[in-house]
Amino acid sequence: MDRRVAKVILKRDIKRRVLNGHPWVYDNEIERIEGNFEDGDIVYVHSFANQFIGIGYINTKSKITVRLLSRKSVEINREFIMNRILDAIKNRYSIAKENAYRVIFGEADGLPGLIVDKFDKYLSVQFNTLGINKLKNTILDVLIEIFSPTGIHERTEGSAVKKEGLEEFSGWIYGSGPELIPFEINGIKFLADTKGQKTGAFLDQRENARKLRDFAQNKVCLDCFSYTGNFGMHLLSGGAKHVTFVDYSDRAIEIARQIAKLNGFDESRTEFVVGNAFDYLKNAYVKTKKYDVVVLDPPSFAKSASSRDAAFKGYKEINYRSMRILKDDGLLATASCTQVVSQSEFESILVDAAIDAKVFARLIYRGGQPIDHPQVYNILETMYLKFLILQISSLDK
Amino acid sequence: MDRRVAKVILKRDIKRRVLNGHPWVYDNEIERIEGNFEDGDIVYVHSFANQFIGIGYINTKSKITVRLLSRKSVEINREFIMNRILDAIKNRYSIAKENAYRVIFGEADGLPGLIVDKFDKYLSVQFNTLGINKLKNTILDVLIEIFSPTGIHERTEGSAVKKEGLEEFSGWIYGSGPELIPFEINGIKFLADTKGQKTGAFLDQRENARKLRDFAQNKVCLDCFSYTGNFGMHLLSGGAKHVTFVDYSDRAIEIARQIAKLNGFDESRTEFVVGNAFDYLKNAYVKTKKYDVVVLDPPSFAKSASSRDAAFKGYKEINYRSMRILKDDGLLATASCTQVVSQSEFESILVDAAIDAKVFARLIYRGGQPIDHPQVYNILETMYLKFLILQISSLDK
Repeated sequence: MDRRVAKVILKRDIKRRVLNGHPWVYDNEIERIEGNFEDGDIVYVHSFANQFIGIGYINTKSKITVRLLSRKSVEINREFIMNRILDAIKNRYSIAKENAYRVIFGEADGLPGLIVDKFDKYLSVQFNTLGINKLKNTILDVLIEIFSPTGIHERTEGSAVKKEGLEEFSGWIYGSGPELIPFEINGIKFLADTKGQKTGAFLDQRENARKLRDFAQNKVCLDCFSYTGNFGMHLLSGGAKHVTFVDYSDRAIEIARQIAKLNGFDESRTEFVVGNAFDYLKNAYVKTKKYDVVVLDPPSFAKSASSRDAAFKGYKEINYRSMRILKDDGLLATASCTQVVSQSEFESILVDAAIDAKVFARLIYRGGQPIDHPQVYNILETMYLKFLILQISSLDK
Repeated sequence: MDRRVAKVILKRDIKRRVLNGHPWVYDNEIERIEGNFEDGDIVYVHSFANQFIGIGYINTKSKITVRLLSRKSVEINREFIMNRILDAIKNRYSIAKENAYRVIFGEADGLPGLIVDKFDKYLSVQFNTLGINKLKNTILDVLIEIFSPTGIHERTEGSAVKKEGLEEFSGWIYGSGPELIPFEINGIKFLADTKGQKTGAFLDQRENARKLRDFAQNKVCLDCFSYTGNFGMHLLSGGAKHVTFVDYSDRAIEIARQIAKLNGFDESRTEFVVGNAFDYLKNAYVKTKKYDVVVLDPPSFAKSASSRDAAFKGYKEINYRSMRILKDDGLLATASCTQVVSQSEFESILVDAAIDAKVFARLIYRGGQPIDHPQVYNILETMYLKFLILQISSLDK
C-alpha cells in the first residue's frame, strides 16, 4: 500500500452496507482521515479496526464522500480501467454485439460516476463526479483502444455535477461527429441528440419497446412523453395503423419527425404534438378519443424520497387517465424511471388506478432494465426502471 | 332474471374486493340467501342494497362460497362457455399458435376452477370446484368443437378437490391417448405425464427457460427440483456442456431421461440423480463442486400465509447454497411458485442470501408468468410465479 495515499477510517458502529458490497461511504460514516489529499484523489478505506476495505476516490463536497473502485489493494491505472471496461462488455453478453448499447453504467460496473453509451461509431460519455473526472484521460485512452471510435462526445451537466464542484461541459472531446448521431436499435434507425437529454438517447427501453412491438399490428396508438419517439417508432415498425407522439419539447418532437422520415414511415401514419402529456390525456377523455395502445414513459417524477408522494400521485393520474381512453382489451404500456418508487409500489399504484377506473387489468408483460443497464442487488440504487404492459378490459363481462 | 335461481345477498359493510373485480365471495360476507339451491348451482349475487353484482356458482362446503362467472345477468350456457374460451384464446396472442399452451387458467380467464392445458393434439383438464364440475359436459362439448382433440385427459385430484366435496378422478374422458403425451416447447420435445403432477407438465416456465437457454453455451449446469427436466433440456438445447438433473421422484427422473433421449442429447452430457435437492446442494459445497449455472425451480414451499416463514427460510437456504457452489460470474436461475411470497419478498430473500454468501448479485433477467397464465391485478391470487437470473460474482474485485 502506498503510504502517500490518504487513509479514510470508518466509524465503529455503522451499517454493514459497504461491507456488503455497496461502494458509497457517506460523510457521517467517517471517523477520521489520515494523510493528505485533495478532493478527487484516490484514498484507501479502512474499518474502525483498521482492516482494509477498499480503494476509491474522495470528494468532501459530496455527502457521498468516498466511492469505492475496488475491494482489492490495486493501483487505479490504465490496466485497472481496461479490465473494468472489458468486464463490463463481457457482462453485457449478446447486447455487446449490438449497434448501440450502454457500455458503462457507473456503480453497477465498478466505475462510479461514469456513463458510456455507444451509438454506432460514436461514444457518448458523462463524467458525473470529480473523482472519475480526474481519471478522464486514462478512460478515454482505454475507450479509444477498445472501440476505435470516430468521435467521443462528453455531456457533463446538471445539478449533481455542480454539487460535485465540477464545471459543466458539453462537446466533442475526441474526433468529431454530427449533432444528431445515427444509430440502430431492433432494426430501427434512431438519432442521438448531443444537445438533448443526458447522453442523447435512452437505451434502457430496448427490450420493453421490442416486446410492445409484437402487439402493434393495425393499432391506433398514443405515445406520451415520447421524447424523440422510441416507443412510437417501435409501434410503427410493428405495423401500427397510426401513432400520435406527444412531448413538451419541440426539439424532441422535431427530431422524432426526422426519425420517422428516416425509417420511411408514411406521414399519414403519424401525428406529432408539442404539448403537456397530462393535459393531452385529460383532453383525450373529454373528446372520448379511444386508442388501442397508450404508452407512458414519463421522466422521473421524484429525485429523492421527499417527493415520493407527489410521484405516486402523478403516476396514478396518468395511468388512470390512460385506462379511460383505451378501447376494451386495449394495451397500456407504462414505465417508471423514478428510482425511489419501487417495483411493488409502482404496481400497487396501477392496481389503485385500475380500481378507480373500474377496469380489469391483466398483466401482459413485466419488463425492466436490459442487461446493459445492470441491476445489482448489493446496490439498490442501480435499479430504477419499471415497465409493464397491461391489457385493460371492462369489468362487465 | 330467472326467479327460480337463488339470490345471495351480501352484507352491508364488506370490503370492495368483489365490486373491484375479484370473483370470490367468502362465507362470512353473505347476509342471507333467498330461494332454494344445491351446492354447485348457479346463483345471483346482490349487494346489501339489492343491486345486482354478478352470477356465479355456490358451494357452502367451501369458505369461498360463491365464485362469480360474470358481472352480467346472462345465462351460463354453451354460448357463454364458448365466448369465455374464445376470449381466453384471443388473450393468449401469439402463444395460441404454439404446439402446447395453457388454454384456460381458472379465475384469470373468468372460468373459476377450470384448468385446460393443450399438449399438441391432446387436452389435459382439471375441474377443481364442484360448480365448474357441474358444467363439465358443456365445457367438453365446446373444447371438442374448438380443438377437435384426439383425447381429453382429466385430472381432478388433491386436497382442494376433496374440500369441495368432489370425488377424485383421473383418466381419459374423451377419446384416448398415451400415458406420456408428446408435445413441444421452444422447439424441444417433451412428455406430459398423465400420472404425474397436475396436468402432467408445467407450461408456465416457457419464456424463463427460453431466456436461460441464451446463456447455456458450454456451461456445466445443475438443474435442481428438475421434475421431468424442463430447464435442463433448454440448457442442453442451448449447447450446455453438461447438465445434472436432481429430483426426488424416480418416475420424473426416468421420464427426464426419456426426454433427453427423444431430443438426441448425448448421454455423456447428462447425469440423472434421484434425490433431495436440499441435500444435494449441501453436499455439492462440501465436495467443492463448481457449476456455471444452477437452476432452482422448487415446488411451492407454502400453501397459506401461516407457513410463509418456513417458505422464506427454505428459499434463503437453497439460494444461499447455490450461490456458494457457482463459479465466479456464474448464473443462478431461481424461481418461486409460492403464491403467498410476493415478488418483492422473494427478491429481498435473494438480497439476504447474497449478503450472507458474500457475493455480488447482478440481476440479468426478471421473468415471470407467460401470457397463457394470465396475471390479473384485480385478482392477486392469479400471480404466483417469480423467476430471476442472477450473475453471482466475487465481492473482491
